[in-house]
Amino acid sequence: MKRSLPLSRVYRLLEPGPVVLVTTAHKDKVNIMTMSWQTMMEFEPPLVGCVISGRNYSFEALTTTRECVLNIPSVELAKQVVGVGNCSGSKVDKFKKFKLTAKPASLVLPPLIDECFANFECKVADTRMVNKYNFFVLQVVKAWIDPVIKNPRTLHHQGKGVFMVGGDTIKLSSRMA
Amino acid sequence: MKRSLPLSRVYRLLEPGPVVLVTTAHKDKVNIMTMSWQTMMEFEPPLVGCVISGRNYSFEALTTTRECVLNIPSVELAKQVVGVGNCSGSKVDKFKKFKLTAKPASLVLPPLIDECFANFECKVADTRMVNKYNFFVLQVVKAWIDPVIKNPRTLHHQGKGVFMVGGDTIKLSSRMA
Repeated sequence: MKRSLPLSRVYRLLEPGPVVLVTTAHKDKVNIMTMSWQTMMEFEPPLVGCVISGRNYSFEALTTTRECVLNIPSVELAKQVVGVGNCSGSKVDKFKKFKLTAKPASLVLPPLIDECFANFECKVADTRMVNKYNFFVLQVVKAWIDPVIKNPRTLHHQGKGVFMVGGDTIKLSSRMA
Repeated sequence: MKRSLPLSRVYRLLEPGPVVLVTTAHKDKVNIMTMSWQTMMEFEPPLVGCVISGRNYSFEALTTTRECVLNIPSVELAKQVVGVGNCSGSKVDKFKKFKLTAKPASLVLPPLIDECFANFECKVADTRMVNKYNFFVLQVVKAWIDPVIKNPRTLHHQGKGVFMVGGDTIKLSSRMA
């Protein structure tokens, strides 16, 4: 059972650079894509910048509906992450094919992927860089986290199907956010 | 001794989301800042989007000179990474304070940090999102890597001085870039 995560904590999950699964909903179809090209842009309200190429089936859904969910998988979902990245939503129902559970979001139409340990409901906040770079600015409007999973081993894409799996954490004295 | 890294491979190092150290040079002063808010935006020529706040001393150097170097540290430099983030270049010579070696770059004025296993010389390519988001688009014009270090343990900031240290890698069959 997920709990609501304060929006001020969203950056702590996205800043380390995990692969995310992006869900969209458009014309009665839901879809999922794998993404690694994203960055935090503001703490609160959390803004996330991301590149979603026009070659992706999700591009039209995102530009039209202006909503998506960023779902963070851990290493247990590695095969599904790659599988989702290797096929197109134009041909495949990815929730069905990869046995992932679509759970209703609270503020947007695209569903949460229940198997992911964190889910961020997003609305598109700025599209001025879409034409040139396919770069969207998203605002996270609602965040969810699984409180049971303590140190999720996230996936960090190094290209060509190679992923670094998140290791241990260290704590240093810091005045940084 | 570093070797030149083909620009087409830059994304494989930045995509996993490591903390980077950004060097700038302005008015006869070099500076370093710690950054985690960056994303790849294009494979080749490699474009990197990043947020550098106006509160950082490096902001003026970057906006004026339009050059920087992104240096990727591994876990051995964790203390220096946090130290660099905890003080301002307006008061401190960070190369001196943290015993880091400034090595001349080939195409830009800011120096490489020799202790980092990879260094990407960058020029600012687009500033249209700087006013609103402090978001710069950088183009990597020259890349260097230490060929001796095989699986560098990168640092991935989770906020408040907590870092995930890069773990093992896995390889899955993928048609993704």
